[in-house]
Amino acid sequence: MQTQGAPILTPPYGTPSPFEAGVVRHARARGRIPTAASSTTPLQDLHGVITPNGLFFERHHAGVPTIDPAQHRLMVHGLVDRPLIFTMDELMRFPSQTRMHFLECSGNSNYAAAPASATAGDIHGLISCCEWTGVPLATVLAEAGVQSHAAWVLAEGADAAGMTRSIPIAKALDDALLVYAQNGERLRPEQGYPLRVLLPGYEGNMSVKWLRRLKVGDQPFETREETSKYTDLMPDGTARQFTFVMEAKSVITFPSGSQQLQGHGFYEISGVAWSGRGRITRAEVSTDGGASWRDAVLQEPVLSKCLTRFRAPWTWDGAPALLQSRATDETGYVQPPRETLIGVRGLNSGYHNNAIQTWSVLADGSVRNAA
Amino acid sequence: MQTQGAPILTPPYGTPSPFEAGVVRHARARGRIPTAASSTTPLQDLHGVITPNGLFFERHHAGVPTIDPAQHRLMVHGLVDRPLIFTMDELMRFPSQTRMHFLECSGNSNYAAAPASATAGDIHGLISCCEWTGVPLATVLAEAGVQSHAAWVLAEGADAAGMTRSIPIAKALDDALLVYAQNGERLRPEQGYPLRVLLPGYEGNMSVKWLRRLKVGDQPFETREETSKYTDLMPDGTARQFTFVMEAKSVITFPSGSQQLQGHGFYEISGVAWSGRGRITRAEVSTDGGASWRDAVLQEPVLSKCLTRFRAPWTWDGAPALLQSRATDETGYVQPPRETLIGVRGLNSGYHNNAIQTWSVLADGSVRNAA
Repeated sequence: MQTQGAPILTPPYGTPSPFEAGVVRHARARGRIPTAASSTTPLQDLHGVITPNGLFFERHHAGVPTIDPAQHRLMVHGLVDRPLIFTMDELMRFPSQTRMHFLECSGNSNYAAAPASATAGDIHGLISCCEWTGVPLATVLAEAGVQSHAAWVLAEGADAAGMTRSIPIAKALDDALLVYAQNGERLRPEQGYPLRVLLPGYEGNMSVKWLRRLKVGDQPFETREETSKYTDLMPDGTARQFTFVMEAKSVITFPSGSQQLQGHGFYEISGVAWSGRGRITRAEVSTDGGASWRDAVLQEPVLSKCLTRFRAPWTWDGAPALLQSRATDETGYVQPPRETLIGVRGLNSGYHNNAIQTWSVLADGSVRNAA
Repeated sequence: MQTQGAPILTPPYGTPSPFEAGVVRHARARGRIPTAASSTTPLQDLHGVITPNGLFFERHHAGVPTIDPAQHRLMVHGLVDRPLIFTMDELMRFPSQTRMHFLECSGNSNYAAAPASATAGDIHGLISCCEWTGVPLATVLAEAGVQSHAAWVLAEGADAAGMTRSIPIAKALDDALLVYAQNGERLRPEQGYPLRVLLPGYEGNMSVKWLRRLKVGDQPFETREETSKYTDLMPDGTARQFTFVMEAKSVITFPSGSQQLQGHGFYEISGVAWSGRGRITRAEVSTDGGASWRDAVLQEPVLSKCLTRFRAPWTWDGAPALLQSRATDETGYVQPPRETLIGVRGLNSGYHNNAIQTWSVLADGSVRNAA
């Protein structure tokens, strides 16, 4: 209090405290193509349900393109009465909606064993949540005049991967948005600036970024990203295609992997739950590895296809403990144990793992991943 | 699509597109003390209701102190059974809550005439809204044991201004939070890192930043910031002290000052409404300077003491138009016209201006501030 603080506007766009320099996204191992990469949201360092834009997880198939919004165009064609090309200014004149939704990569929480030192973000950080603003896809399709036998819509990105996915027309006409803003400001480059599609509750790669083209058809387009990739190979050698919805899931973010409790006594267990099918209706926690469960409190408002923060009081007696959480959504579906999920799906596929996570609290207060 | 995009993690904490470099906070005129300053949120460039942390408005009385959270302490004393000092780690072990609330400076929308070129942010940008996470102040006061004759709580900041305000005990025990996170991550330095109090719906300066001390007393502490400052001087020479609540208010953000319409035809009028007394129940828009009004659609969920986005369709015929919005809250209070407010309060005080804003759309599509 003895010295004047820093003056204003340095910089005009603010940044976190230097004391929070460790709260960043973490890049995951890259393959042969360096731009085909991902980075995770540090869930263990976050509170509430909003992910700040600077920490929103990334998954790119060919890096982040630089797109001048004044030059960008969206083409709508195929089984429509009036093929159309829009500028960004034209698109943004349509009526907009704002909604809070999570976005989760289908490859989140890969089944492969993570090390004991793994954090919540390391294992489950390919999920983020923010407030999206955009134009309902249904509005733009109505403007083009979708023909009666239309059944699917191809969404194509303007990245070097030419990312393409087929969207069922029912979803396109339901709650799909053409998004231009996140958490108040325009989309971040790595989230598809200046335009992406958002399919609430569906696996993340379908919410195609840097959206440049929508083609309406009468059957799925069988793109690379829905045939050789993003299908679930089952134990019998057949594959599940078009597993769109991300099922109910949860993870405790405190206490979680690599965190350290400061002695026994009172703690508040806290985590996030979500479902691609709607609202979370229940989150339970266990401190004995699933032998017994009790209800956590859900932070209001509980929104559809959105992260829900849950909290439960816990007095730690200093003995080793196994912490788990499980989510139930409005359809009645309950998040399964890891063994149950593997029993059905096997380990051929790394996608759609919504199994219960276990954190092990050791007697010294350290917290470790116990899968 | 012919070249690979930028690789990941440059930087690990993301930043907006270079094409959005103009979307920043704007510093307002500074007085004799350069660190007693403010900067405004660019409301005209934002969508939805969340303000990204980098664009959250600022108002500092002596600059932004640099505080090591490991060294920071909160003292609670005065009329309590157990005077206490907390570290940040200790405070964060208490049960937390997460809520979305606006924060508005009582000096927002100063009555002084703004130029015709002023933007929505220039005039009304001392308001922002985010998701806050913290410990209920009531919990910490209960831990200290508030004595039966306690009536006020002094909050003191650790900045060089020693910012201090008196909080009525009823508010302290109602919905006040000791906040350590905003929009998921830890508080930004300019928002009080590592700890601030948040008094939902009350004038912003009472939500003391860099909080270091709470003293419980039986009467207000009559600090500088509630005597010589932040009181409303009325036309008869008396002053209103303790005008805590920010009344219902709204502003159209599109079309708004210095924006440019691209020809006549369909537009969606969009803006934000809020009330320090609870939920917004109605937002109306006028395109003829208040001669006629129609209801805008409120974006769900409508939350208490939170910005609410409203939207209304408008087909511009190319003739000059005067755009206005007015908000009604759950108490039935209706945002007043500027003349009505000035008729009651005069122009001695620059605080608590919640009057209706008028934007003038000229025949060439340019939009100007018309007060």
